[in-house]
Amino acid sequence: MTEKITLAHGAGGEQMDRFIKKTILKHLTQQDNVEIPLSMLDDSSVIDDIVFSTDSHTVQPLFFPGGDIGSLSVAGTVNDVSVMGAQPLALSSGLIIEEGFSFEEIDKIIESMSKTARKAGVPIITGDTKVVEHGAIQQCMINTSGIGKRTPILDKNFEIVRQYRKCSQRWLLDGNLKPGDEIIVSGTLGDHGIALMSFREGYGFETTVRSDVACVHQLLKSLLEIGGIISAKDPTRGGLANTVNEWSEKSNYGITLFEEEIPISEGVRAACDLLGLDPLHIGNEGKVVVGVVKEKADEILNQMKKHPLGKDAAIIGEVDEKKGYVKMKTEIGGKRIIPKPIGDPVPRIC
Amino acid sequence: MTEKITLAHGAGGEQMDRFIKKTILKHLTQQDNVEIPLSMLDDSSVIDDIVFSTDSHTVQPLFFPGGDIGSLSVAGTVNDVSVMGAQPLALSSGLIIEEGFSFEEIDKIIESMSKTARKAGVPIITGDTKVVEHGAIQQCMINTSGIGKRTPILDKNFEIVRQYRKCSQRWLLDGNLKPGDEIIVSGTLGDHGIALMSFREGYGFETTVRSDVACVHQLLKSLLEIGGIISAKDPTRGGLANTVNEWSEKSNYGITLFEEEIPISEGVRAACDLLGLDPLHIGNEGKVVVGVVKEKADEILNQMKKHPLGKDAAIIGEVDEKKGYVKMKTEIGGKRIIPKPIGDPVPRIC
Repeated sequence: MTEKITLAHGAGGEQMDRFIKKTILKHLTQQDNVEIPLSMLDDSSVIDDIVFSTDSHTVQPLFFPGGDIGSLSVAGTVNDVSVMGAQPLALSSGLIIEEGFSFEEIDKIIESMSKTARKAGVPIITGDTKVVEHGAIQQCMINTSGIGKRTPILDKNFEIVRQYRKCSQRWLLDGNLKPGDEIIVSGTLGDHGIALMSFREGYGFETTVRSDVACVHQLLKSLLEIGGIISAKDPTRGGLANTVNEWSEKSNYGITLFEEEIPISEGVRAACDLLGLDPLHIGNEGKVVVGVVKEKADEILNQMKKHPLGKDAAIIGEVDEKKGYVKMKTEIGGKRIIPKPIGDPVPRIC
Repeated sequence: MTEKITLAHGAGGEQMDRFIKKTILKHLTQQDNVEIPLSMLDDSSVIDDIVFSTDSHTVQPLFFPGGDIGSLSVAGTVNDVSVMGAQPLALSSGLIIEEGFSFEEIDKIIESMSKTARKAGVPIITGDTKVVEHGAIQQCMINTSGIGKRTPILDKNFEIVRQYRKCSQRWLLDGNLKPGDEIIVSGTLGDHGIALMSFREGYGFETTVRSDVACVHQLLKSLLEIGGIISAKDPTRGGLANTVNEWSEKSNYGITLFEEEIPISEGVRAACDLLGLDPLHIGNEGKVVVGVVKEKADEILNQMKKHPLGKDAAIIGEVDEKKGYVKMKTEIGGKRIIPKPIGDPVPRIC
């Protein structure tokens, strides 16, 4: 029987990783002159000092507590460009709309894209609109791609890194971490996935949890101004567990997380208990996780807490001295391995 | 009753034009510091001398005579970037795949993207893959976005333009045409739309027409090296009729086409006669139409004919001395107005 694509192949995590490597990277090997090529599977790629990223948004429902497909499609790509250390410059909008969809809803969605982009200071400068017959897609999907540019702030950030340890990198890559670096998250985890789930039919629970959808580039810029940031990532599909496993694999060092430090709201914790889900596997859309040289960790944490998007920030882990896996020191004093999730347990969160 | 989106809102042409202006541009007004903003509705936009474009591909069927969604998605965006006069630098790939789709077909599609990109010399450097549940989309859709850069060839091209007439533009824009400029098309029209149509169920005709899907940037580069190009456009959705109407509207001059000079293959002509379609309304995916200062028109035409993609090239029209519409001098000596089509008569050609 021919092998078929399943939802897990697009859900972040282990199975998606294998699919991308086996089916996609195998063909797309033409990466000469690309400073950060596709094969590095980082948040964006870099060519000629232009940071370039793309993300298709298929979220259901289109409107949810705390956001909608419009705000999500802008924030998702702004974040992917900015976690490389770049300043986002412009976005594209590729709309695919189902015939019969209402003008009123499209209007709301575009208005939301516009508001989010305006607040972010990143204009949507190019677009494409396709309409397909009823049933060929569900309502509306949006691809946004983004470009970003290098600014002197990033160079200064790395100069500060080099005051404390060797570092030959120019961008905030997944593979940059070294033993002793500390891991800081900007706020509570799991809000986006749980908000979506509660709003969908069939899950049978109520919550006041709202999506965290937001652009994190201005927060990140304020951290780069302090300096000492090594890596940054937005923990979307597959959640924090996916992010730290990517870092561990690519950096080739173990990572230890401190369970009691990881910020999770009461609402998310209750929903996860009810549904048997791990909040570390659930996607976020307005958080950033940074790896920082330990000498600058407290200063970075304090700066984060000053920003509205970082008020619940916490130092949640550190990079081990040795190769290895991601482990978590539990609240009761034990240790457990945090494997790369198979995928995000909540489908179509973005 | 709430107004609903119809297929014509995404088919190129008049109705799409109104939809984009009324619903999308209304919100996306933040275009400061954008040299060629979204509101110009040209093939790409330009910021900081980076050309940026996006195109979602929803073609059905995925595989058709002469190409597939993979080759189409690469060629479509390479062409959109290059018709601004830029050298395409890199592409993104945003895949949306239906659960249950076969690995074998995805493999073929990615291989085709890779081959087309490699031949074009434009790497796919960043990507995103989403899998949605069965029924949420039809099979597979691909967004490609592209970035391009300015090269000295474009400056030299405009220097040559300025030997013959005033020109303050830096890019090959729709609105650049002036009276006396000549219009040249690189080959036969309508092949892509007719090839797709013949291959789809329900139309009840057979043809040997194949899609013309191809990247035109190398052809265009060889023309820029000669110099004197004013505008360039790939006549996709809505066909040549849409292209020349866009030019006429934005340049604010009438255009006269010469019917007997317009290259159309026998197969396309026969299919159009059978189906009651106008080949000028049908989309193409491997053609370029250029506006040229008349003193360089013959030289540009000869250069086109030397290139495999331009062997059927012809001078097909000229820009009138006055404001006005697009007219066609017919083979029997009359004149008829060529209005902007409502949309492309063949749905989901790209």
